[in-house]
Amino acid sequence: MEKALQNTIALLSRTPAVLNALLRDLPDEWTHRNEGENTFSPFDAVGHLIHGERTDWMPRAKIVLQHGESVAFEPFDRWGHLEECQSKSLPELLDEFAQLRAENLSELRGLGLRREDLARCGRHPALGAVTLSELLATWAAHDLDHLHQISRTMAHQYREAVGPWSVYLGVLQCQAHGA
Amino acid sequence: MEKALQNTIALLSRTPAVLNALLRDLPDEWTHRNEGENTFSPFDAVGHLIHGERTDWMPRAKIVLQHGESVAFEPFDRWGHLEECQSKSLPELLDEFAQLRAENLSELRGLGLRREDLARCGRHPALGAVTLSELLATWAAHDLDHLHQISRTMAHQYREAVGPWSVYLGVLQCQAHGA
Repeated sequence: MEKALQNTIALLSRTPAVLNALLRDLPDEWTHRNEGENTFSPFDAVGHLIHGERTDWMPRAKIVLQHGESVAFEPFDRWGHLEECQSKSLPELLDEFAQLRAENLSELRGLGLRREDLARCGRHPALGAVTLSELLATWAAHDLDHLHQISRTMAHQYREAVGPWSVYLGVLQCQAHGA
Repeated sequence: MEKALQNTIALLSRTPAVLNALLRDLPDEWTHRNEGENTFSPFDAVGHLIHGERTDWMPRAKIVLQHGESVAFEPFDRWGHLEECQSKSLPELLDEFAQLRAENLSELRGLGLRREDLARCGRHPALGAVTLSELLATWAAHDLDHLHQISRTMAHQYREAVGPWSVYLGVLQCQAHGA
């Protein structure tokens, strides 16, 4: 397998265990608070990752392989997870994410992608031509984006509690909110 | 125990397992690259967390309890981990961090801190008067600061690989580098 794809899969395969170690049975003050209106709590972020497993990454990869640029991806709904999450607990979401991710990675490995497959182009509804390689790299970077967001959102809950130390904590100065 | 202290300990007790799930046996392209000169790789961040366990958090907590504001904390050396880390592997550092953190939390719980203890003041060499409560909250927020940094540093390695998707990834826009 291409080295870059191996690195991508190495990261993708770890994220469910990372979120499990961080969030399972953690008090709600950490997991269910956000950074203000229209921002994600850690609970929301896990729901959003689940929605991506169902509707974004592997479905798009298959569109690239089957249709190339002739069929644009469906737009992804950033808040598409809300209804699905309402009746679930965080442990349930963590379990669901782990299961979906494992299934998707099994399917990805099964595709036996070669260098020329990774170079194939699909069509993003807003960004235009994108390669399969870029899609898969973005899947991994998107995990990191939400780990970054979750750690920032949790730190936000302690912005007063740390007192004068706030000036030393870069995480409290991060302006990537809502991204 | 005070609710806020329970929440702090809940977070602090999880960080070693989070870093273990994320970093152990991950390819060096993720773990040993940084964001440029004078920035931490994930490997450096774990070493830095170890250095904090040894020289920062609990030693300072004990200074507050024993001396109040009469004895200022030793300044913390942000690069104090470098020499210690040079000969070690990342799995060794992860094990060491987990052990030191468990020992420190055991000692913290053993102190049986009451509300009036948490309100006691110590003296930071640069920030001046700080409470024990603020010190302990900062210990937890500092974990999140480095989880935030590690996820950003890892995402940085994929800034080219994601192609046009970079505009959607807040983690690639974060300006908290080096903090």
